[in-house]
Amino acid sequence: MEMIVQTQTARFETVALESGAVLSSVEVAYETYGELNGARSNAILILHAFSGDAHAAGVGAESGKPGWWDSMVGPGKAFDTESYFVICSNVLGGCQGTTGPQSMNPQTGAPYAMTFPVITIADMVRVQKMLIDALGIGQLLAVAGGSMGGMQALQWAASYPEMTRAVIPIATTARHSAQQIAFNEVARQSIMADPDWNGGDYYSGKPPARGLAIARMVGHITYMSDESMREKFGRRLREKKKFGFDFSVDFEVESYLRYRGSQFVGRFDANSYLYITKAEDYFDLLSTPSFAPETASVRFLVISFTSDWLYPSYQSQEIVRVLRRRNLEVAYCDLQSNYGHDAFLVDVAEQTDVMRGFLTSTYKEKPAVAARV
Amino acid sequence: MEMIVQTQTARFETVALESGAVLSSVEVAYETYGELNGARSNAILILHAFSGDAHAAGVGAESGKPGWWDSMVGPGKAFDTESYFVICSNVLGGCQGTTGPQSMNPQTGAPYAMTFPVITIADMVRVQKMLIDALGIGQLLAVAGGSMGGMQALQWAASYPEMTRAVIPIATTARHSAQQIAFNEVARQSIMADPDWNGGDYYSGKPPARGLAIARMVGHITYMSDESMREKFGRRLREKKKFGFDFSVDFEVESYLRYRGSQFVGRFDANSYLYITKAEDYFDLLSTPSFAPETASVRFLVISFTSDWLYPSYQSQEIVRVLRRRNLEVAYCDLQSNYGHDAFLVDVAEQTDVMRGFLTSTYKEKPAVAARV
Repeated sequence: MEMIVQTQTARFETVALESGAVLSSVEVAYETYGELNGARSNAILILHAFSGDAHAAGVGAESGKPGWWDSMVGPGKAFDTESYFVICSNVLGGCQGTTGPQSMNPQTGAPYAMTFPVITIADMVRVQKMLIDALGIGQLLAVAGGSMGGMQALQWAASYPEMTRAVIPIATTARHSAQQIAFNEVARQSIMADPDWNGGDYYSGKPPARGLAIARMVGHITYMSDESMREKFGRRLREKKKFGFDFSVDFEVESYLRYRGSQFVGRFDANSYLYITKAEDYFDLLSTPSFAPETASVRFLVISFTSDWLYPSYQSQEIVRVLRRRNLEVAYCDLQSNYGHDAFLVDVAEQTDVMRGFLTSTYKEKPAVAARV
Repeated sequence: MEMIVQTQTARFETVALESGAVLSSVEVAYETYGELNGARSNAILILHAFSGDAHAAGVGAESGKPGWWDSMVGPGKAFDTESYFVICSNVLGGCQGTTGPQSMNPQTGAPYAMTFPVITIADMVRVQKMLIDALGIGQLLAVAGGSMGGMQALQWAASYPEMTRAVIPIATTARHSAQQIAFNEVARQSIMADPDWNGGDYYSGKPPARGLAIARMVGHITYMSDESMREKFGRRLREKKKFGFDFSVDFEVESYLRYRGSQFVGRFDANSYLYITKAEDYFDLLSTPSFAPETASVRFLVISFTSDWLYPSYQSQEIVRVLRRRNLEVAYCDLQSNYGHDAFLVDVAEQTDVMRGFLTSTYKEKPAVAARV
């Protein structure tokens, strides 16, 4: 039976940001799956990756589309909605229902565009915490997410360690390396080099479609592994038997990238791309003293994938070492996969196994710290 | 003592290309270092990488700049100009003295731009062979190059195996993988997305500087390793102590990429970028029956670098397996380096060791096949 899901919206008067700026009239798009139990002890917050949205699972009431982690969230799945109440919200700075650069600035009546304040992963998590408060949940059973979702999960252990019993960072890092910043910078430069970007003021005209498509193409290369690209495309030619000896599409991989690039333009805002990648680059928990204090009673399940070269396993192992040094409870799985960074979205079987066991044991345990409702 | 070098130019009436097209009035920029011996048996052809040029060594007579492989070519160096006569030419399709898309089409009196025929690595090598013929050299002691230079070296063993006694492919592949094609395609799309590209007709106006800079930025990420980027930049901030909370440069790695991108625009032609990357993508010696025939008397030294993820070691090992299966003489070194793909340009010590021994033993041996002068 299909689970039809309606995206909902929460509103907050003001949100104070890490930069010192204050945003007013902030909207947050979110979805929930399953039922909150009487003790309010079964809520799990799912955190989406860079280009994700609040629609993690089920079938969208209007779009008719499955959620981005539908394989992991639902009855009998890793995040079993027969046991847990699962929440997913679009991040601050996003473009899928939560306030971001394309939103109307209530002070001016025009879209923020580049007057939107620079936000951080901590700001995203602050807004999530306001949502959890508004839903009347005093303590989460777990926060979980892959890639940038994993950064948010880790940030919960820095900002509100008492508010979650478990943290599940997947295919992520405690801070971006020079190479990761470099890939993001290329994407930003590509968008800003497009004349249609127009300093960010394009909402009444056409968006910087070419620049955004290039950015997305680079992204897609980093999401796959050398091996998964070889398996999926190899050197196969597109709709012809021989080289064209021209600059039309020769290889299937070229056609795939062009398609993914152009398709992305229809669903994502270029300015959100700038702000969200900046938040990723600023993120640095290894220099954040409040991260995972020794006194925290939160437990961790850290997952990485062997072929992920965008967020390589050594970065997850760095997280594990920091947590172990602080004597915190941490389980770590480096899962074998050929899918590269995309593995957290598509390689479901093993993730489900380790997730289910970890969540069940966390749920069964008495909370070490009483929930502050 | 500095070796001052003057770039020279050879001219050929016509060059027949693999596509069937014929180019007329082809110019080839080249340099030579050292002296050709009386037996004409000490000539080594050096083949440059994607954005290289004929100026491999010494100090340019006009530019005053050292050659791109000056650390490897010169008196007492790996390619010892006290023993060998070293030649390097700019590739066909290039923009540094050899005929390419920015050259004048003698039929029209205007630059070829995108009417330049699509060329292949085999076409580049054909022109090199014409140059070697013109220099009166019947057989080369060796052909050697890194990256795309390595592809050309391998192509010599397919097109003219009897014309060289040794082939030295470094940090290269017998054919591009889907990932390598993908990176090239992103670069091409980035150039072609720049309105200033104007279908390739920009020689009387301004070049597609933004698109070309983005392409080069992506390139630079792939040339370095995750580790070498961390060592060189880490998360160091540029000229400030704190995040700017804006979109100016925060990190040193951003500043480096922007500089490298913009600096490249002054010295490279965007259309050449398109044609040369296409030649790389078409290159496929594993599907070329004439590659390294069992009857060939050529010997190989294959070199890869452990941290090179753009041309990973497994691709060199693939070359070695093919050659061994054909019972050809092949030495293989996977050199330890943190420099990524750039290692062939900067990690000189070990390369010099293996190169010197290999060249000395090749030179001392009697040619198995008499040179056909």
